[in-house]
Amino acid sequence: MHPTMIRPANQADDDPIWNIFHAVVASGDTYVFDPHMPREQALAYWLRSDTHTYVAEREGQVVGTYILKPNQPALGSHVANAGFMVSPMARGLGVGRRMAEHCLAEARRFGFRAMQFNLVVSTNEAAVKLWQQLGFRIIGTVPEAFRHSKQGFVDAYVMYQSLQ
Amino acid sequence: MHPTMIRPANQADDDPIWNIFHAVVASGDTYVFDPHMPREQALAYWLRSDTHTYVAEREGQVVGTYILKPNQPALGSHVANAGFMVSPMARGLGVGRRMAEHCLAEARRFGFRAMQFNLVVSTNEAAVKLWQQLGFRIIGTVPEAFRHSKQGFVDAYVMYQSLQ
Repeated sequence: MHPTMIRPANQADDDPIWNIFHAVVASGDTYVFDPHMPREQALAYWLRSDTHTYVAEREGQVVGTYILKPNQPALGSHVANAGFMVSPMARGLGVGRRMAEHCLAEARRFGFRAMQFNLVVSTNEAAVKLWQQLGFRIIGTVPEAFRHSKQGFVDAYVMYQSLQ
Repeated sequence: MHPTMIRPANQADDDPIWNIFHAVVASGDTYVFDPHMPREQALAYWLRSDTHTYVAEREGQVVGTYILKPNQPALGSHVANAGFMVSPMARGLGVGRRMAEHCLAEARRFGFRAMQFNLVVSTNEAAVKLWQQLGFRIIGTVPEAFRHSKQGFVDAYVMYQSLQ
């Protein structure tokens, strides 16, 4: 059995989700969210009504979380969007990959025709490489779309894969 | 003086904005919104707190409306996004172009570094051509991202221009 288990989030996960969200966002190098985004706002975003939220557990500890949702409303809602966060303490254990594989399976199960990431920070090379390994390709580059906490304005990629 | 005047929207514009929004969205060929999106939801979206909303008037009548807002939160908020709607009764009069020029000037005035459209329906050739004439270029094509009311799944473009 894989040591990382994925399951839908429930209210008891609010604390670990917030801890992971805060740690990931605080570094300002992968997500557009305000590094000082308050807990209430973060949880409201991550657990929105149109969003499927999951957590990854290892040895009973929540070490990662991901969301799966339509990338656009009605006439664009057949394309999924997703976001992944791994606890800094659990990096390098394959948690991100495990969540992404689970996410792609869930997206197919829900009937999404494709998955799109709107803003993958180009300097986040580990993520870009993982998405490519999992079948995503870069379909566009938005010049300097991300204000990186250390590197200033850097490009972002639009990434996509068909699920059909 | 140009016969089309642009000004910020106020509450008295709710009715004409809704009429235009509804007429544009109902055809299901240019915007992802549900063609049956209710008035309250439409106005809430078009007049959100992080959104600058304008109307275009001709001879005292509101014939178009546009929004200008950050395309992403915090670390992506230096890139603008915009949406334009022209009353079906006022097509071919240059209202869209006039609003877009106004919008680009406003975006520069607010200090946005670039403008990005996330989903320009590829079959909306008049819009694509207008955006290209105004300096936007296609930086990505999302395969079958839009479910067109008549043509089924069609591609959508990500379009972009620097404002610097």
